[in-house]
Amino acid sequence: MNFSSKLLENAVAEFAKLPGVGQKTALRLVLHLLNQDKQDVERFSTAVTKLRNEIQFCRVCHNISDQPVCEICSSHRRDHSLICVVEDTRDVMAIENTNQFNGVYHVLGGLISPMDGVGPSDLQVDTLVERLKPTTDNEVKEVVFALSATMEGDTTLFYLHKKLKNFNITITTIARGIAFGGELEYVDEITLGRSIATRVPYENSLSK
Amino acid sequence: MNFSSKLLENAVAEFAKLPGVGQKTALRLVLHLLNQDKQDVERFSTAVTKLRNEIQFCRVCHNISDQPVCEICSSHRRDHSLICVVEDTRDVMAIENTNQFNGVYHVLGGLISPMDGVGPSDLQVDTLVERLKPTTDNEVKEVVFALSATMEGDTTLFYLHKKLKNFNITITTIARGIAFGGELEYVDEITLGRSIATRVPYENSLSK
Repeated sequence: MNFSSKLLENAVAEFAKLPGVGQKTALRLVLHLLNQDKQDVERFSTAVTKLRNEIQFCRVCHNISDQPVCEICSSHRRDHSLICVVEDTRDVMAIENTNQFNGVYHVLGGLISPMDGVGPSDLQVDTLVERLKPTTDNEVKEVVFALSATMEGDTTLFYLHKKLKNFNITITTIARGIAFGGELEYVDEITLGRSIATRVPYENSLSK
Repeated sequence: MNFSSKLLENAVAEFAKLPGVGQKTALRLVLHLLNQDKQDVERFSTAVTKLRNEIQFCRVCHNISDQPVCEICSSHRRDHSLICVVEDTRDVMAIENTNQFNGVYHVLGGLISPMDGVGPSDLQVDTLVERLKPTTDNEVKEVVFALSATMEGDTTLFYLHKKLKNFNITITTIARGIAFGGELEYVDEITLGRSIATRVPYENSLSK
């Protein structure tokens, strides 16, 4: 593109680095910001810098937080003997939105992916193992894995299961099967096949 | 959405104000920035603030520029007697990319749109009229309108044509018709009908 201004070119180049944003979208976003009031643009860039500079991660579960220990981990109304292991903060938000989980979380910060050069040491694995050691004040009874049903998710699950199997803890994963509202004829063969093999008693299948 | 952090929520809210960016996309972009180095994020927000605070508009054509008079307007190799009137800086970039235009531009900064409350006084109309007044050093011979073929574009064209018709200047618009590579059966009726009515001699139709 032929930019008439270096400032414009710079701003577009920075926006185009964002995932899923190309040059044309970047230009549209930048021209939109250019039409806003100075204080609005200031507020935008301050929010971004402040986030990056002041954000903290919960000392216990490693979720994004404003305090050293996040609200969920410091709540007495949550069941601290039940830990849900997830990939990132988006998964915590998604599960919290369901209102079906009353335990606490452990955010790995990614999944094992040799293709992307992400190994177990890049994730919060050691801190998870540390949390599971029985202490006087808190004993973990169950760990639920809520990881994506992808190659990376399965690899991470396999690795962590091996790490945790010697602890005296129940290890579960979220149920896989046909989504509510899903039509049988459009479901892929693997999901359908597995959902027949892992069929459940009728009473258990009702949503509560 | 249930954010675990106010800082995160703020940043997502700011991104979600951008056109075409919803809450989920905003969250994805913000989490991407959170994974970047501090200096990269700093560079991103500086580029945005700098753009908004230091950007200038060319005194002559009102295009975005780093100098008081833009490169095109200050070039001696451009034909200053031929002015192309466009909506915004994206149109200048698009036309410059074709390498088919050697004149100068006039950026209106929008189109007349009563629905959005944009009238002629919000656009660079008076400055265009001023530019067309014959002066000793530069006489404009032709004005080409390169506006979108929409209701707003046509309204603006109609208004400007009435304003300019008393000047001794040729007024033209860019050609409308079937796009190169376009198949006849998929062309809409109005475009096809008009392109038959405004047919051109074969020699003129060849691209140079």
